[in-house]
Amino acid sequence: MLNFEFYTPTKVYFGKDTHRKVGEIIKKYGFKKILLHYGGGSIKRIGLYDQVVQDLKDNGIDFVELGGVQPNPKVSLVRIGAELCKKENVEMVLAVGGGSVIDSAKVIAISALTDIDPWEFSAGNAKPDKALPVGTILTLAASGSEMSSSAVITNEDKLLKRGFNSEFNRPLFSIMNPELTYTVDKFQTGCGIVDIMMHTMERYFTSTKDVDLTDRIAEGLLKAVIRAGEIAIKNPRDYEARATLMWAGSLSHNDLTGAGRESFLRCHQLEHELSGMYDFVAHGAGLSIIFPAWAKYVYKHNVEKFCQFAVRVWNIDMNFENPEETALKGILATEDYFRSIGMPVRLSELNISDEKFEEMAEKCTHYGKRVISGYVPLGKKEIIEVFELCR
Amino acid sequence: MLNFEFYTPTKVYFGKDTHRKVGEIIKKYGFKKILLHYGGGSIKRIGLYDQVVQDLKDNGIDFVELGGVQPNPKVSLVRIGAELCKKENVEMVLAVGGGSVIDSAKVIAISALTDIDPWEFSAGNAKPDKALPVGTILTLAASGSEMSSSAVITNEDKLLKRGFNSEFNRPLFSIMNPELTYTVDKFQTGCGIVDIMMHTMERYFTSTKDVDLTDRIAEGLLKAVIRAGEIAIKNPRDYEARATLMWAGSLSHNDLTGAGRESFLRCHQLEHELSGMYDFVAHGAGLSIIFPAWAKYVYKHNVEKFCQFAVRVWNIDMNFENPEETALKGILATEDYFRSIGMPVRLSELNISDEKFEEMAEKCTHYGKRVISGYVPLGKKEIIEVFELCR
Repeated sequence: MLNFEFYTPTKVYFGKDTHRKVGEIIKKYGFKKILLHYGGGSIKRIGLYDQVVQDLKDNGIDFVELGGVQPNPKVSLVRIGAELCKKENVEMVLAVGGGSVIDSAKVIAISALTDIDPWEFSAGNAKPDKALPVGTILTLAASGSEMSSSAVITNEDKLLKRGFNSEFNRPLFSIMNPELTYTVDKFQTGCGIVDIMMHTMERYFTSTKDVDLTDRIAEGLLKAVIRAGEIAIKNPRDYEARATLMWAGSLSHNDLTGAGRESFLRCHQLEHELSGMYDFVAHGAGLSIIFPAWAKYVYKHNVEKFCQFAVRVWNIDMNFENPEETALKGILATEDYFRSIGMPVRLSELNISDEKFEEMAEKCTHYGKRVISGYVPLGKKEIIEVFELCR
Repeated sequence: MLNFEFYTPTKVYFGKDTHRKVGEIIKKYGFKKILLHYGGGSIKRIGLYDQVVQDLKDNGIDFVELGGVQPNPKVSLVRIGAELCKKENVEMVLAVGGGSVIDSAKVIAISALTDIDPWEFSAGNAKPDKALPVGTILTLAASGSEMSSSAVITNEDKLLKRGFNSEFNRPLFSIMNPELTYTVDKFQTGCGIVDIMMHTMERYFTSTKDVDLTDRIAEGLLKAVIRAGEIAIKNPRDYEARATLMWAGSLSHNDLTGAGRESFLRCHQLEHELSGMYDFVAHGAGLSIIFPAWAKYVYKHNVEKFCQFAVRVWNIDMNFENPEETALKGILATEDYFRSIGMPVRLSELNISDEKFEEMAEKCTHYGKRVISGYVPLGKKEIIEVFELCR
């Protein structure tokens, strides 16, 4: 086990009707003027927008609003949000939506207190040293952004999608009502399931030895998500399944599943190139294609860990005479599961050919300046080979 | 799954040599004058006291000190600590030790900012609304106090041991170096293992349905603790085992294993009467006696949960024709495990007879004013019957 720091200060309000307390909660913290930040029409369609606005008014909280966050949230909107916060002397940003809205809110909250251009934080050229507090009302179980230290935004001019971690990205509070995800469609639910599993699995497939406790917690989380995912896809209004996915989403990315080990989100790095290049690729769909390919590319270099995954998570019988077979079965079981919940597992399903593989690999390696670490270090050549396995 | 709030703001510094950063950490927070609070001689014996004092001096942090915390920490010392904080204008309390020292520090930190007598918080007659910040350097994996909202102290005049929960009991930071537990002897290590398991199991045996995710996390934690416990008892200097126990201790009691369910520390309530009455009874030793008795008393009222425990935690084959047999096997496996790590499982091993059963049951029910909830509500009569099974 490696040394680690663990810091999850976000106060979570979880359960039915909890979003009805948003005004009261903000009032308790003493904020008088906030930015209400959201995406497209879904929060208006389900009536959430009206409820939040009413609740803010009832509690005497003044607000300005900025909607229009898109999937793969854009830095251009972040710039607008940061300017708005400065102009209006906003004290807090309330994100109502999924991971894209929350990530956008996080970078707005940081950029509101500085003159540095927001993209500089994502590009790694600047580090935040303060931020407005961010509160969230979560409407999608997926990114874990509601408790995480990360934020990912896209530079639409450069076709680049970049994430950065900072303690200033941790929300002050997050309100999680699983009922607000009842109307999330099958595909987006599937994307969320994959994202949650991948936040756990990316940390699970580590090179660090002796992380039994963190492994066991990750395995338990995965088993619960696999089961709840099947149920939520079949019955979108199953409260318990939606609740399991929502809480698992937070725990999968708040560092609990990474405690004490080297963890690097390799498949996420590759996926960011994919959805950065092809804006129509949903993050979860990109991951469900990339993980099986990456796993097949590397598993022979850590057969024992892939066997553990197969046996403990997928209940596959260990083949002691041929461990590689067991390891591969675990990967195929994951691929089958992704397919069973309606997710793509090959690029061809999205009509993406190999023409951009080289360009994506170059961007992913920062034009040769970095290597993606893991069981097999991935440079440009290896990344192209992984993409080939995605075809 | 029930609605819940989750709030674990304590910043954790985990791993080798982390205690060497204590001065730097306190300095970063800006505290200039602290109370250094500790127990008996052990932190001096292992050289930790000298290291901490030197580190505080090196970082220009002024301190007053109060040692002498005993197991089952006494309210009389808390009173002295609170007065000292007031007199010396202390800004923060640093607890160096195990759960007793941390609990004592928490109640000092609350009492330092009020004129209410410390016992009033434990007795439930007053609720804290502020506290000095508490930092910890943990030297014992057991109570989970380093991340928890609870504090338990003993009123030696009344022979009462009482705990209370408050957000003001959450430490600001906790430094956890597993190496500092190398010198903890076999018995105290065993007590810690039982306490960690019981913090998880008390929450696990809930009446709330549909808590699959929290169950799976709890089961994973228990499996990791069971394995690490065996190793740490055999080889006290096994870093990985000590690290697993230490991190599990924090996670078992920071509310993660209770998220979304009714959880009531029933065996802890009974144990507090036992060690409140018999000061020589270590908390973990009391629990290792009470749990098997309590479980045998109630398991027929939730056979399915006890079966799940037996199958998933202890790898016992499910007897589908006779589930009660499986359930009981899980309880006996737990009892055997406690015995195997050197813990008592009967009161007779501690030479305690039945003479105080009635008095303890009266105190535990607050003289008939409350019932301990659970699968079987425990009033005075039932508590005596559980104690009878402990003989």
